[in-house]
Amino acid sequence: MPQPARSIQAAPGAIEPLPQPYLLFLGDVAEPAYAKTAFGLRDWAGERCVGEYACVGAKVSTGLRYLTPEQAFAEGARSMAIGVANPGGHISPAWVPQLLQALEAGLDLIGGMHARLADIEPLRSAAARLGRRLLDVRQPPPGIPVASGRKRSGMRLLTVGTDCAVGKKYTALTLVREWRALGVDAYFRATGQTGILIAGQGIALDAVVADFAAGAAEMLSPDAGAEHWDVIEGQGSLFHPAYAGVALALLHGSQPDVIVVCHAAGRETVLGHPGYPLPGIEETIELNLRLGRRTNPRIRCAGVSLNTAKLDAAQAERLIAAESERLGCPVADPMRGGEAFRRLAQACLR
Amino acid sequence: MPQPARSIQAAPGAIEPLPQPYLLFLGDVAEPAYAKTAFGLRDWAGERCVGEYACVGAKVSTGLRYLTPEQAFAEGARSMAIGVANPGGHISPAWVPQLLQALEAGLDLIGGMHARLADIEPLRSAAARLGRRLLDVRQPPPGIPVASGRKRSGMRLLTVGTDCAVGKKYTALTLVREWRALGVDAYFRATGQTGILIAGQGIALDAVVADFAAGAAEMLSPDAGAEHWDVIEGQGSLFHPAYAGVALALLHGSQPDVIVVCHAAGRETVLGHPGYPLPGIEETIELNLRLGRRTNPRIRCAGVSLNTAKLDAAQAERLIAAESERLGCPVADPMRGGEAFRRLAQACLR
Repeated sequence: MPQPARSIQAAPGAIEPLPQPYLLFLGDVAEPAYAKTAFGLRDWAGERCVGEYACVGAKVSTGLRYLTPEQAFAEGARSMAIGVANPGGHISPAWVPQLLQALEAGLDLIGGMHARLADIEPLRSAAARLGRRLLDVRQPPPGIPVASGRKRSGMRLLTVGTDCAVGKKYTALTLVREWRALGVDAYFRATGQTGILIAGQGIALDAVVADFAAGAAEMLSPDAGAEHWDVIEGQGSLFHPAYAGVALALLHGSQPDVIVVCHAAGRETVLGHPGYPLPGIEETIELNLRLGRRTNPRIRCAGVSLNTAKLDAAQAERLIAAESERLGCPVADPMRGGEAFRRLAQACLR
Repeated sequence: MPQPARSIQAAPGAIEPLPQPYLLFLGDVAEPAYAKTAFGLRDWAGERCVGEYACVGAKVSTGLRYLTPEQAFAEGARSMAIGVANPGGHISPAWVPQLLQALEAGLDLIGGMHARLADIEPLRSAAARLGRRLLDVRQPPPGIPVASGRKRSGMRLLTVGTDCAVGKKYTALTLVREWRALGVDAYFRATGQTGILIAGQGIALDAVVADFAAGAAEMLSPDAGAEHWDVIEGQGSLFHPAYAGVALALLHGSQPDVIVVCHAAGRETVLGHPGYPLPGIEETIELNLRLGRRTNPRIRCAGVSLNTAKLDAAQAERLIAAESERLGCPVADPMRGGEAFRRLAQACLR
C-alpha cells in the first residue's frame, strides 16, 4: 500500500495549478473499481485531501473523514474533485444537488470525466452566479505552442511502455517519492487525468490537437536547474495502432535523458487489439532510444518497470531476477518495492 | 505547368463533400505567392471552378473568368472558396462585403485560413438568416473514432517525407493524374487544407485531437475494392521535432501498401529548425517501412519523389539519374514529369 505522498505537488511552470486542497467526491458509487481516481488521490495527494463527500447511499469510502462541503471549506478546501471514473465517463443527474452544494459552499468543481461539467446547465449558471470555476482536467491549457525542438535545461525521465495501462503513471510517482526521500529535487509531470489531479497540474496529452502535442510536452516540463528532475508520465506506446503518434510526440517533446520501460508481465497482445502482438522489451527500449535521440542525443534506458500484479510474490521475485539477468539492466516492480526497486531508482540517477 | 486535373474529385467515403463547383475568391491580394491556394485549385480542380472574384484593386488573377457571385451561382457554383493564404491566416475586414454578397447570391463560403469564418459576426448572422453554410476545411468532421488497427481492403499509397513542404501533396496529385490516365481506379485523399479544397473533401490531420489522429486516417480511406487505390497526402515527417507524432499517426492509420519518399534536393536542415539536420533518404525509407509494418506488414517503398525546383533542367536530370543509381529505385521530379516519373508511377503499381 503506498504511503501518503511526499510532495507530489504542483511544480513551478507555465501551467496554472488546480485549486487545492481537495474535497473528494464519490457520487453514488457502489463499486470500488469505479472510485480508483479517489483512491489514487488519497494515496498520492493525501496531504491535499481534507476529506470525502458522497451522495446518501454511496457504498465506497476512501477512509478519509466524511465532511460536508461547508465543513471542508472551513478546513481549507478550495475545490471538490470528482473521484469517480465510471464506464462511459458520465456525470450522473443524482450528483447534481451535491455538486451545487459545493459551489454554494465556496468550492470550485474539478472533473476528469468524458462529460464536461460546463455542459450541465444548473452547474453552469450556479458557477457564473457565484463566481466559481468548473475545471475539466482533460481540457488543455490555452497557448500551447508548436514544438521548437530547442533543448531545455534540467534533467528529465519519461516512463514509456510496451502498451497502455502497464504502470507508467505509478512508476513515475514511485520514482519521485523514492528520489525525494533521498533529497533529489524531483517533480512528477502529469499527462493524464488522474495524474493531473494528483500533481495538481499537468496537460492531458491525448486531448491536445495533434499539431501541438509535442509542443504541449515541451510546455509541460520547462527549463529547470541542472540538478532538477522532471519525471514525466508516459502515454500509450510507439507500437500501439491507435496511440503511437501521441507516444512519439511525448517522447520528442519531453526530450528525456532517461527512459524506464514499463511492461505488464504475461500480457501478450495490445490491450483491446488482440490482433496486435506486444513488442518485446528489448525492441521497446531500442525504438524509444532511437527515436528519442532525435531531440536528446544523450537519452539512455535505466531499466524496466515490470507490473507483476498477476503473479504471487515468489513468482514475481523469480521473474524479476530472470528478466534483469536476461536484459542486463535493473528490473523491478514498483508496487513491490524492495531492493530491486531501489536499484532501478539509483540507476536512473547515475 | 500542370494541366487541368482529370478527376481529382470527391471520392466515396464517410466524409461529407464540400459544396461545388467553386467560385474562387482572391480578396485584395497583391502578391501571387499569397494566392497559391487559388492557383492550386485552378490547376487541380479547374473543371470545378466556374471563375474567380476579388475586391476592387486586387492585383492577382488565376486567369479564370471574372464572375460576380450572382453570375457564378447562375452558372452552377454552389460555394465561394477563399483562395488566399496570407501570413497569419487572417480574414481581412476589407473582404467582408464580398463574402456577404456571396452568401446573398446563394453560395456557401469555404475557408481554410487560421481565422474562422464563423467567428466574424456579420457572416455568422447572414449565414443563419439565409440558411447558408460557413465551412472551415481545417475543422475535423464529427464522429472520428479511435483507430481500430483493423486491416482494410483496397490498396493505399502514402507520400512521406524527409521534412515538411517537400512536395508530398503535389506527388500524390500527379500520381493520381498519371494513374487515372492509365485507367487505374485511383483517388486522392487529402489531409491538408489546400488538398481538401482540391479533392472536395478530406480531413486536416494536424487539426485532429491527438488520440484520434490515427482514427482519422482510418476514416479517410475506408474499405474499397481490391483494385482500388487511395493515394494519401502525407504530412510532416517522422524526423520532425514538432510533427513526427502526426506523421506516425497518419502512417499507422493509412496502412499504406506503398510509400513514396519525398525530398527537396539541397535541403539540409528541417525547415524552420536549423539545429536539426535532415535525415538521409535511405534512413527515411527504412524508418517508415519499419514503423509502417506495424499496421501493414506488406508495406514497401516504390521510389523517391525529388523536388528539384532549385536546379536547372540539366542539373536536375543528372541528380535524378545519380540518386536513382545510388538508391537502386526509381527517382523522379513530378514537376518535371517525363520518363523518370512514368517509371516511378509504374513501380508503385507493380
